Amino acid sequence: MQSLWLENQSLSLRDTPRPNKPGEALIRVRLAGICGTDLELARGYYPFTGVPGHEFVGEVIESPDKSWIGKRVVGEINVVCGECEQCRNGRPTHCEKRTVLGIVNRNGVHAEFTTLPLENLHLVPDSVPDEAAVFTEPLAAALEIQEQVHIRPTDRVLLIGAGRLGQLVAQSLALTGCDLRVAARHPLQQKLLTDRGIRLITEDEVQPRRWDVVVEATGSPSGFDLARRALRPRGTLVLKSTYRGGMTVNWSPFVVDEITIVGSRCGPFAPALQMLEKKEVDPAALIAKRFPLSAALEAYETAKQPGTLKVLLEM
Amino acid sequence: MQSLWLENQSLSLRDTPRPNKPGEALIRVRLAGICGTDLELARGYYPFTGVPGHEFVGEVIESPDKSWIGKRVVGEINVVCGECEQCRNGRPTHCEKRTVLGIVNRNGVHAEFTTLPLENLHLVPDSVPDEAAVFTEPLAAALEIQEQVHIRPTDRVLLIGAGRLGQLVAQSLALTGCDLRVAARHPLQQKLLTDRGIRLITEDEVQPRRWDVVVEATGSPSGFDLARRALRPRGTLVLKSTYRGGMTVNWSPFVVDEITIVGSRCGPFAPALQMLEKKEVDPAALIAKRFPLSAALEAYETAKQPGTLKVLLEM
Repeated sequence: MQSLWLENQSLSLRDTPRPNKPGEALIRVRLAGICGTDLELARGYYPFTGVPGHEFVGEVIESPDKSWIGKRVVGEINVVCGECEQCRNGRPTHCEKRTVLGIVNRNGVHAEFTTLPLENLHLVPDSVPDEAAVFTEPLAAALEIQEQVHIRPTDRVLLIGAGRLGQLVAQSLALTGCDLRVAARHPLQQKLLTDRGIRLITEDEVQPRRWDVVVEATGSPSGFDLARRALRPRGTLVLKSTYRGGMTVNWSPFVVDEITIVGSRCGPFAPALQMLEKKEVDPAALIAKRFPLSAALEAYETAKQPGTLKVLLEM
Repeated sequence: MQSLWLENQSLSLRDTPRPNKPGEALIRVRLAGICGTDLELARGYYPFTGVPGHEFVGEVIESPDKSWIGKRVVGEINVVCGECEQCRNGRPTHCEKRTVLGIVNRNGVHAEFTTLPLENLHLVPDSVPDEAAVFTEPLAAALEIQEQVHIRPTDRVLLIGAGRLGQLVAQSLALTGCDLRVAARHPLQQKLLTDRGIRLITEDEVQPRRWDVVVEATGSPSGFDLARRALRPRGTLVLKSTYRGGMTVNWSPFVVDEITIVGSRCGPFAPALQMLEKKEVDPAALIAKRFPLSAALEAYETAKQPGTLKVLLEM
């Protein structure tokens, strides 16, 4: 099969054997997304060799349980042991022995086929097109914020960053009824938000010590710094991004102001699919461009451009 | 009156006018504690000129409400406006216009007399001796942890640091029924804990990725690093100390492991006094030495010695 292959920070198209993992479903990938983590893997920020990619919608081709064959599915990306302390305590996404689709010790979905255990799969409702279903994984990651932090309708919530993930965070936060403002730098990011009635704020307009919850989705020191200044005493800072390397932080103000900081990663698929089915969020507008798998290298180059939203690969 | 005076990082004993603040109670200080913050002020880590000290028990001498006269009291250290956004939202200890006894724009208690508004005062029950009442403020600060974080009886809780504040944190955490271990470096700190049946752990014994809640009470980068390694995914790190200057942190593991960090400062006086009345905590064993106010400089020198617990000033 045709695959995108990452090795020594170099991407190439290869002909690789069709995957075959005993006990797992074989899935023909229909549509896959390129996300920030894929770009960081390609830049070598994390070590990974193999097929990248973890956002997808596909069709089950082979399965230990034949009733899955022919079904259109999305898949949770953490493949877990079910037996370690994290799994037994209801934290399977933190399984100590996990492999992660296209990220940790498991080939991903930027290829014609992939495999996943059946327990990772979710049926896609017929009314949800591939172009929406492919956003299930990042939308689930966005929803992890509400899974972790109680967002009250009376809360003033500031979102810093409105890229691929930030747009989905904005759309789902807006559903809580909270007083949401988004600091977005790129005109297209701004337009997508205002088209949905989501209000913008410039960095200069952000009032210091005012915001109950700040979601930092830029992964940059300047975003972190803005978040820090914006938070009210006893406010909550959600880190919804990865940060490269070390960042020097003066902790005393966090202690004096009794700030809570929450790291946020993978989220729940079922409510994400439900939101897509009910059209409560609309990811289609985030699609910047679609490429065939054979043009995956060009697709990655496009995704790298600042301000580019979601680039998709069609298999 | 005789006062300890801090100016330009220099402490001296002075004869200053007896304080007189309209609308506030005049309090004769009976006993006062020296805490880490006092030592940091004296070292110049925070700018302050005036009488230091904020831990005390005293007797009301003059008061706008005469019924307070003659009463033995302790006092909350934040003097607040009652009108700002923080005050109106139930966060008076974060009042934007606050003065803080012996810390921010208000003379403290390392003097014969001090003043505080009546709303800051709490009556000390007759059964609580001065030697216990003087610990109300730091015990309240210890209880702020349970005010902020739900400590479950099934939680594995690691406390790093067992100095002045750490001992009170240990005693109050032990009351929750949680599986508590304390990393304490000094033999006296260790003995005080084991005397109360609180279990120790060496830094080498701390299992990585195991602890539900870690309380960092050393304020040192090594303590922070140990805390980080000890926390399980989705665990909670309580910062119960101030940190001098900046500390470089690699944020990605906090995001990947979805750690929550909670800064923790001043706490509730009423439950602290109740615990002292019921003898659920026993601060008396923490008293290292008592000095008359006239020997305050020597008292500060003693308090500075590593491993020294509570040094008291008698007025």
